[in-house]
Parts: sequence; C-alpha cells; structure tokens
Amino acid sequence: MKHAVLGTGIVGTTIATRLIGLGHEVRLGARETGNDRARAWAKAAGARASHGTFADAAGFGELVWNCTLGAASLDALGAAGAANLRGKVLIDVANPLDFSQGMPPTLFAAAAGESLGERIQKAFPEARVVKALNTVNAGVMVDPQKVAGGDHDVFICGDDAQAKGRVTEILRGWFGWKRVIDLGGIGSARGTECYVAFWVRLWGAMGTADFNVKVVR
Amino acid sequence: MKHAVLGTGIVGTTIATRLIGLGHEVRLGARETGNDRARAWAKAAGARASHGTFADAAGFGELVWNCTLGAASLDALGAAGAANLRGKVLIDVANPLDFSQGMPPTLFAAAAGESLGERIQKAFPEARVVKALNTVNAGVMVDPQKVAGGDHDVFICGDDAQAKGRVTEILRGWFGWKRVIDLGGIGSARGTECYVAFWVRLWGAMGTADFNVKVVR
Repeated sequence: MKHAVLGTGIVGTTIATRLIGLGHEVRLGARETGNDRARAWAKAAGARASHGTFADAAGFGELVWNCTLGAASLDALGAAGAANLRGKVLIDVANPLDFSQGMPPTLFAAAAGESLGERIQKAFPEARVVKALNTVNAGVMVDPQKVAGGDHDVFICGDDAQAKGRVTEILRGWFGWKRVIDLGGIGSARGTECYVAFWVRLWGAMGTADFNVKVVR
Repeated sequence: MKHAVLGTGIVGTTIATRLIGLGHEVRLGARETGNDRARAWAKAAGARASHGTFADAAGFGELVWNCTLGAASLDALGAAGAANLRGKVLIDVANPLDFSQGMPPTLFAAAAGESLGERIQKAFPEARVVKALNTVNAGVMVDPQKVAGGDHDVFICGDDAQAKGRVTEILRGWFGWKRVIDLGGIGSARGTECYVAFWVRLWGAMGTADFNVKVVR
C-alpha cells in the first residue's frame, strides 16, 4: 500500500520506517523538497521509500499520516492540498503543543476548548480524520510490545466509522496493538489531546518515555 | 483524627462517610449552616459526624478535604478562612469543570494554562496543598478494590514533600490504594486536571464510571 507520512521528525520517521519494514511504499512529506531529514531518511530506507513536498506525499499516498508538529499541522495539510486528501483516511497523530512558555508544553487547542483533530476535520471536511496514537511515544506507537508485553491501550476518535474500522485493523494487524478503544466522534480528541498534559508529567515521574496506560474496570 | 470535608456533593459525602467508617470524626462544611444535604448526612452518619459552615468545618479539622465544585473552590476556601487552613494538609479533590457549554464539561483552569490546585496553593500559601483522587469516580476514590482488585494508580501532586508523604499513607492505609504515583510539584496538577477531559470520554466508552488506568512500562 502507498502511504503519505507528513512530517520528518521522530514520529514521522518512526512510523515511515515501520511501514517500510512491513513492505509498504512510503513518501515522506516536508515543507521543502530539499529537506535534509527527508532526503536522509529516504536514502537509508531503501527502494520503497521516497520523499517530496507535503503535496507530493499526499498525492502519492492512499493513506495519509499527519505527523507534523501540532502548531504547523493546519498549514502543512493546507500545503498538502484538500484535493490530495479527499476521501482518504487521515490518521492524525499530532498534538497541539505550545512550547513557547517552556517545558512542559501547554495545549493550544485545549485552551480554546477544542482539539486539533476537530480543527483538521473542519478544515478538510472530505478527509476521513481519525485521531490515534498521539497518547504514546513514537517507539511505542509502532511497537506496543516493548511496553508490558503489549497489554495496554491505544485510543481512536473520529466521525467516520469505516475509517475507524480501517485504522483499528492497521493498529492491530500491522503495529501489534492488542487493545484499541474507540472513544467516539472526532470531538473526543479533546480528551486524548488533553491527556498529553498528563503524559508529560507522568514521563517525568516514570523516568522513561516507554510507558502507557491500561484501562481497567 | 478530626477531618473537615468541604462540599456536600457525592464526592464530599462519599469521602466523609468512609472516614466515619474508619473511626474518624468528620465535620461536613457547606456554604450555609442550614444546608439540607449536610444536615441529612450528619444525621445519618452518627455520633462522630457533624456539619457546619465551611469555616466551622475548617476550624474543626486537622486535615481538610476540598470536595467542592471546582468553580466554587476558591470562594469556599476563602469562606473557610486562611487562618483555619494554616499549616494544615489540604487534599484538593476538585476539578475545574465548566458545565456552561453543556456535556462533556470543559476545563476552565486548563484554558488559562494553569490548574485549580496551583490557584488554591497560591491563594492559601500557608496551606499544604496536595492534589489527589481527582482522576477517579467518588466510589473508586475510597474503595479502589472495586476496580480490578485495586491494581491501578492514583496520582499526587504538591510542593510539600511531608504533606505528600502523609497523603500517601492515607491513600494506602485508609483507602487501600496499592499504587500511588508522585507526579511532582503542585504545577503537575495541570496534568491530572487535564486528564479529566480524557476521563469523561473514556467514561462514555466504558459504560461505567467504575474504571481507572494502570500505568505500565
């Protein structure tokens, strides 16, 4: 399958590398064609890997992963182009983190009582946005087994039931997630994005980013 | 031991009843002396139970539990009186929930990039504020065994290490929490309060309020 991974940071390259390892074709998208990290990644990742602008990547991918910084996501998706996103499942992994006040970051969308996931769905109504994976570290996203044998949870939010079903299959079948909890419509992304303010404190307390939560009852 | 429980809602009366059951003396504080719920609770809870104004309760208690609605907490604690809180451990269980936009609620303090716990500590610098228990339902707060045999986590935040040690003993020894995670200073309450935006979505997905998370690594 052909994937667009937008964003050349740790999250984007970690997901892109995992997809390559699974036998998929991946085009990593950046703001500029000549992005050094995108070029270096594509060179190292082999024949099924390529890179380009956000629009190049989004035009290429059947599935689109938003791994850009939250503050840049709407611009990046705008550059990707609504036509290139139309009808596609868009997995939104980004968090609306504001680092301007130092560490730990605050949440800029939560401050407006809204989520980045919702803003993206509103801005690109023909994309099928599913918020997922934003509650764990990049390494855990694609290899949940590295934490507690995989016995913990990932959360999905979105308005399109079929798209959520597809993402659930991807999380389970490709990345090995055993437990996927559907929190409801894209409005529920307010919950998983706010969770990140909790995650960053827990990160400090745990002394590692390789952790997660298991919901119990 | 003598306790002040401020707030006559489900959280306040649940904690107050549990403390009575443990053999403690509890004065339940309300805005008005004649509060019907406070009177009814005290009558039902027996000889060690009493009720009064916020100031009556805070003057009585060696330990103070803030179980008021988040939006009313600073006023309630002001009515309790800084002198009645001086030097005392103040366990802040409240959440800064704003129900004015309907359900699920938004977080008014998070919107300002701040927590209610911090606001309380700033407003009452001589109180020893420990944020705790605000991440679970009232019934789970005082009886963690009812969820997954107690194998899940509660979080504490506060600037006073000795006060956090005391609260940890209370959570473990009195209520039966097996796992208490110290997230750091009272600023970390931004994390546990933001978590509540996640909790309310999870509540919908789980179909019960008797759940919690276990942190795994």
